[in-house]
Amino acid sequence: MIKVTVWCEFIQEKTQPEVTAIYPDGIHTAIAEFLSLDSELVVRTACLEQPEHGLTDEVLADTDVLIWWGHTAHDRVADEIVDRVQNRVLMGMGLMVLHSGHLAKPLRRMLGTACTLRWREIGENERLWNIAPGHPITQGIGDFVDIPHEEMYGECFDIPTPDELVLLGWFKGGEVFRSGCVWNRGYGKVFYFQPGHETYPIYRQPEIQTIITNGVKYLYQPMKRADLGCPNVQPLEEISL
Amino acid sequence: MIKVTVWCEFIQEKTQPEVTAIYPDGIHTAIAEFLSLDSELVVRTACLEQPEHGLTDEVLADTDVLIWWGHTAHDRVADEIVDRVQNRVLMGMGLMVLHSGHLAKPLRRMLGTACTLRWREIGENERLWNIAPGHPITQGIGDFVDIPHEEMYGECFDIPTPDELVLLGWFKGGEVFRSGCVWNRGYGKVFYFQPGHETYPIYRQPEIQTIITNGVKYLYQPMKRADLGCPNVQPLEEISL
Amino acid sequence: MIKVTVWCEFIQEKTQPEVTAIYPDGIHTAIAEFLSLDSELVVRTACLEQPEHGLTDEVLADTDVLIWWGHTAHDRVADEIVDRVQNRVLMGMGLMVLHSGHLAKPLRRMLGTACTLRWREIGENERLWNIAPGHPITQGIGDFVDIPHEEMYGECFDIPTPDELVLLGWFKGGEVFRSGCVWNRGYGKVFYFQPGHETYPIYRQPEIQTIITNGVKYLYQPMKRADLGCPNVQPLEEISL
Amino acid sequence: MIKVTVWCEFIQEKTQPEVTAIYPDGIHTAIAEFLSLDSELVVRTACLEQPEHGLTDEVLADTDVLIWWGHTAHDRVADEIVDRVQNRVLMGMGLMVLHSGHLAKPLRRMLGTACTLRWREIGENERLWNIAPGHPITQGIGDFVDIPHEEMYGECFDIPTPDELVLLGWFKGGEVFRSGCVWNRGYGKVFYFQPGHETYPIYRQPEIQTIITNGVKYLYQPMKRADLGCPNVQPLEEISL
Repeated sequence: MIKVTVWCEFIQEKTQPEVTAIYPDGIHTAIAEFLSLDSELVVRTACLEQPEHGLTDEVLADTDVLIWWGHTAHDRVADEIVDRVQNRVLMGMGLMVLHSGHLAKPLRRMLGTACTLRWREIGENERLWNIAPGHPITQGIGDFVDIPHEEMYGECFDIPTPDELVLLGWFKGGEVFRSGCVWNRGYGKVFYFQPGHETYPIYRQPEIQTIITNGVKYLYQPMKRADLGCPNVQPLEEISL
Repeated sequence: MIKVTVWCEFIQEKTQPEVTAIYPDGIHTAIAEFLSLDSELVVRTACLEQPEHGLTDEVLADTDVLIWWGHTAHDRVADEIVDRVQNRVLMGMGLMVLHSGHLAKPLRRMLGTACTLRWREIGENERLWNIAPGHPITQGIGDFVDIPHEEMYGECFDIPTPDELVLLGWFKGGEVFRSGCVWNRGYGKVFYFQPGHETYPIYRQPEIQTIITNGVKYLYQPMKRADLGCPNVQPLEEISL
Repeated sequence: MIKVTVWCEFIQEKTQPEVTAIYPDGIHTAIAEFLSLDSELVVRTACLEQPEHGLTDEVLADTDVLIWWGHTAHDRVADEIVDRVQNRVLMGMGLMVLHSGHLAKPLRRMLGTACTLRWREIGENERLWNIAPGHPITQGIGDFVDIPHEEMYGECFDIPTPDELVLLGWFKGGEVFRSGCVWNRGYGKVFYFQPGHETYPIYRQPEIQTIITNGVKYLYQPMKRADLGCPNVQPLEEISL
Repeated sequence: MIKVTVWCEFIQEKTQPEVTAIYPDGIHTAIAEFLSLDSELVVRTACLEQPEHGLTDEVLADTDVLIWWGHTAHDRVADEIVDRVQNRVLMGMGLMVLHSGHLAKPLRRMLGTACTLRWREIGENERLWNIAPGHPITQGIGDFVDIPHEEMYGECFDIPTPDELVLLGWFKGGEVFRSGCVWNRGYGKVFYFQPGHETYPIYRQPEIQTIITNGVKYLYQPMKRADLGCPNVQPLEEISL
């Protein structure tokens, strides 16, 4: 069983009617619901307002893959929790960051860049192109996925060169985007997946659910690192100095 | 002209006689001296004890390449200065981190990993193998460089996959190490170069000086980014929604 | 001085009036003309119909960067010449392959993949997005370049992961493409640049000329490898077995 | 079930007594034996002297992972069979190339480089360092593997930058080597694994068997590509030109 924790800041769903209409119980709940249908996954959720944002040492130690959705309150995430998330990723926890999480502290921490981009919110359509058709993340989606309405995120996206670039986004208004990117960090992997604006029901679209489910399984790493120390060691060869 | 700032914590050179004996004026001064012989470079130095560690906004704005040597006082580097260094790298400043700087805050910030390794200090010899003989950083050094006495740094080194791996270290006692690594971050590049323990005169060795000089020139990026913002943009195509 | 050889199959320019109208003296001549305006470059041309396709040992030994445009006659390029081009690249010659050269033997030889893609020829517009704004190849072009009419080349493009991905193409009809890719091979580099269909005057567009000129300079490698052998060597350490 | 074909030139085992003593039934048979102990694998073998080198269309179409050991007769492998192997890899077959296969035609075909290296055959010890401890290929081997006697293969190894570098070799005589490298090519992956000289019983060493078994499972790609063509496609968007 793969243990998944879906984290959400869970603010706009309670304060903006157009968001409530789509995700009445929060984006995290919507994601947890479809993931829970998969018999290999055990899913829980966590939110910003909980003590330690719901990401206690105990929760993270019991998490194989952490999914992150944040937008309006990146600054309210405590640095101590970001440290904790980073350490768990380096020890083998997978981290999937969605959409507006491109500016979330945990992603910027793992990547070292500003993760800035150009954007526009007019609800234009996006087409996600599968440029890695043999990759586990893109199984079952075919050559491309059409998203009827999405916020535009366009290049230049300030990220390190991905270890694996699996999806490219085409936007009606004229932009392109590296929409599915994987980086290795320590024993863990980080997957940034661009779709998912809060005012469109993108996480209710089957192909998007397929990619997220695939992503969770791809991020799962059974081998965890025990600690992050620097051992002082003896020579392995006889040596005369 | 390429403007170089050589930063050093400059502690052990004043407190440990065996270090003073080798670098009486500090490691930064030794590095600045040989770099200054190159007519393309303008070199200054900065130290931990200076206000803002000598890395004011003015100094960084006037720096094309920052070289970093730290060892015993990583924790004393203010996070605000690390933020500043990170932003400058993303805007195009090169960053070269030497030896024990593997645990320095700026490197960990740019890479997102723990940068841990195994180590041993018995003064064994190291051989740096040139695995990128066409690369600008390795010009003039031949197939390998022998370092008579060095602290051992061994794998597994917790770093992201380098965008360019240029040097591999062989150690007499039985270990190997990714000793020369380059990563792209924003408009800037980061070069980690492993040699340089404070109790051996490694920065006085001509081949090492060649690599550092080459590295500075390789890290130099004339094109700087103006700011790190996310622009909201209009469509480039006529679009009906 | 950088010595450039521009190779072209030079067939459609002589047999198809709509191509002749745009490139009466051949695509190679059009490219050579604008490159020759740069005082750092010395340019010659070569064509399929010449003995050894104009790529004798002497010509290649005197070439720093080879530009390749082919379309209808890939199969008529002799394998012996492909071997020769490959060896020169591994020894340090740069290779720039344009547009329909994605199926040319030299590119497939260097990459090991089929280099297939999806395509459409209706003259739609393309927008080249600069995703590596600090890279030497993209200097002077800004955020993007619009090409009024271009053949569509779309993903999935069967190539190895580029060492450097510098340009992404957006097509009006709904596709995206990795339009500017660099791979390291031996001492040399290979740059695939997608624009340039023979029925549109794309190589007369200033921004495209800028990218090609930048590309030539980026591909130039002063350090050449002497031979491609495997030396049998003595131990560097005293060793008792 | 994963279908594995182990290919061997099977010459030295019949002509050199010191090789016969170690691998009386051929290296392929020794490898097939330990792989067959794994209940997930179905293993067959093929040799140079068989018709079509034992690699008929039928055999390759029924092969998920092809293992390749060759040394003295690379030139006797027919180019037509190399074409066939290449196409199958691009369609999803895994390819593991062992030791002296660095110069085998299939590896050079997939990589595009000369795959040259420096070498020495005095039977010195090698230590394989695990630099990707979370990677599927290195599970179960710990920090390193000692090989008591091995032919030395040293850098500079003329290969493209691996997509994944998992093992580094340390040699007693003073060299290092990228001993475990993975490249993505089309839908398939290529794994080069350096150990395995014919005069030492390296393929009888448990840790080496673990790495090869892990490698087979990692190379296995259930998703195969149907053909290698370039489709001409219609626009996905309404378009007025």
